[in-house]
Amino acid sequence: MSLESIKYAPGRLEILDQLLLPVQSKYLEVKGVEDGWKVINKMQVRGAPAIAIVGCLSLAVEIFGENFETKKSLRQEIEGKLNYLVSARPTAVNMKIAADELIGLANELTKDENVTTEAMKTRFLKATEDMLQKDIADNKAIGTYGAKAILERFTKEAPVRVLTHCNTGSLATAGYGTALGVVRKLHELKLLEHVYCTETRPYNQGARLTAYELVHEKLPATLVLDSMVAALLRAKHIAAVVVGADRVAANGDTANKIGTYQIAVVAKHHDVPFYVAAPLTSIDLQIPSGDHIIIEERPDREMTHVGEHRIAAPGINCWNPAFDVTPASLITGIITEIGVLTPQHLKEVISAM
Amino acid sequence: MSLESIKYAPGRLEILDQLLLPVQSKYLEVKGVEDGWKVINKMQVRGAPAIAIVGCLSLAVEIFGENFETKKSLRQEIEGKLNYLVSARPTAVNMKIAADELIGLANELTKDENVTTEAMKTRFLKATEDMLQKDIADNKAIGTYGAKAILERFTKEAPVRVLTHCNTGSLATAGYGTALGVVRKLHELKLLEHVYCTETRPYNQGARLTAYELVHEKLPATLVLDSMVAALLRAKHIAAVVVGADRVAANGDTANKIGTYQIAVVAKHHDVPFYVAAPLTSIDLQIPSGDHIIIEERPDREMTHVGEHRIAAPGINCWNPAFDVTPASLITGIITEIGVLTPQHLKEVISAM
Repeated sequence: MSLESIKYAPGRLEILDQLLLPVQSKYLEVKGVEDGWKVINKMQVRGAPAIAIVGCLSLAVEIFGENFETKKSLRQEIEGKLNYLVSARPTAVNMKIAADELIGLANELTKDENVTTEAMKTRFLKATEDMLQKDIADNKAIGTYGAKAILERFTKEAPVRVLTHCNTGSLATAGYGTALGVVRKLHELKLLEHVYCTETRPYNQGARLTAYELVHEKLPATLVLDSMVAALLRAKHIAAVVVGADRVAANGDTANKIGTYQIAVVAKHHDVPFYVAAPLTSIDLQIPSGDHIIIEERPDREMTHVGEHRIAAPGINCWNPAFDVTPASLITGIITEIGVLTPQHLKEVISAM
Repeated sequence: MSLESIKYAPGRLEILDQLLLPVQSKYLEVKGVEDGWKVINKMQVRGAPAIAIVGCLSLAVEIFGENFETKKSLRQEIEGKLNYLVSARPTAVNMKIAADELIGLANELTKDENVTTEAMKTRFLKATEDMLQKDIADNKAIGTYGAKAILERFTKEAPVRVLTHCNTGSLATAGYGTALGVVRKLHELKLLEHVYCTETRPYNQGARLTAYELVHEKLPATLVLDSMVAALLRAKHIAAVVVGADRVAANGDTANKIGTYQIAVVAKHHDVPFYVAAPLTSIDLQIPSGDHIIIEERPDREMTHVGEHRIAAPGINCWNPAFDVTPASLITGIITEIGVLTPQHLKEVISAM
């Protein structure tokens, strides 16, 4: 059974606290936007799609119990709080795109004289709730397209070995996963020989979360350290690398968890195809290239400590960018819910939709 | 002041327990070969040159207090125990080379009828003690040649930024260091703008040991994670990468701490020179290429735990090679105590010595 990382019912939201995994599986109640901002900023929930869903649902539970005198006050509440939620993890574009869409909806409903304040609230809640279902459906489509792309490079259909980075599974999305959705699909097709996952320092999302999902679902899997990718690609026959994305620029440059760019360089050196799996909501046509993506730098303590345990020499400076940008030239394809797009055709295809 | 990681006086040997650094600076007494084997195998002492020195000195303290009836019994003791010590960390060739040399010396002295048993013991002890001084002198020569090679690529002499991996400093050698000796020399010349050191999972020798040495000696330094090297080479202007070696094959292929090969691939992609700093004792002309180097695989627990703290999901498989092999084609030069050698000329130059 796939993990349930987001539990939602109208007026009630709980998330699995990912900082406690794999030692403890504990759900945290998110009572409103303040809690939503905190769980996103503290990375108790992470993964670009999951951030957007939890952010929007945190607003949904907040306004669920509130009464609004006018549509204008409801609209102001929606706009102000969504923009605030975007600030919790600015690199993840999905929250920004979801916020813009929901603000657009609120503006429309405010203008529509046939809609009462109560109806506007109901419609808004429904729109946030639909995001959960749509995310799972999109991920399943990504899984199908991605598995097909990886397999069709071989003349004979046989189980393949793949490598993934960070966590892009049930814990990073509403369920199923993006890059890990591709891995899941290969397994469902009985065509996954083995999946390797990287530890993903400093937060160890690979070792803690991806490994947790893979063990939980009994996929044939092995953990490697971030430093081992080149040795792995040389020693084992790896059919493809598949990673997620926090934000894809119009030219295909992709911001993702730190280490992704390095894996792409290493994959290129070994002639291993390198795929980015991302829903269209992670693609930001507003930014022409990766140069325009601001990389969040996070506190030294994430690198120098594991929990309360110090692992680095006291007094050392740290450089801790949370993401890096992989240039489009290193990306074989971007796996979306509408198919696998080459970086070159991304803008054209999406603009034509 | 440079750190003193090996304290030796005739009949007495102490080593700084590197597994406890940087939290505790505690010396361990090594009373003989059993202790020597253990501290090497448990990685309380590490770094190929330091392993050889501690191994040989552990035999020196053991035989210091013993009386031998015949030269033959002394020779047998030397040969048997040195071969046993080699087995503690088989990838590090320096211990093997030192053992072979000392066994050769013991054979010569056994044959020489002018040498008494007591004189043989004295000569043997002196030979092991000389290794300490020679190692420091060799490292200083490596530092000088390496700094020159890095600087001479620039038309104008100006401070440079360099990257190093793992720990190759005072803690890995008798003092000064190999790759870190090059960094020290740049700093002495006031031509080190900045040194970046990688964390070096799973044992974090970079974060714990190199960072400790750099902070201790106040070098301008920053810690990065193993996953950040590509992002670092793209973001900052890095003049060179310089790493150590556990064993260099006759063709220049180099076995070194896991992650080295990946850094070499990434350096090549960014056109950054990649140097290996290693004393001649790390070069093994007996093995024609890296294909003949057996890579030690170490326990999963090194990856899944930090101290007693579990950091990976229970039940996940691990792949934990301690080393990888960097092919000669990715190596700009091998910095030795006799100068910087290209991988192509290594065998020729050393054979001609």
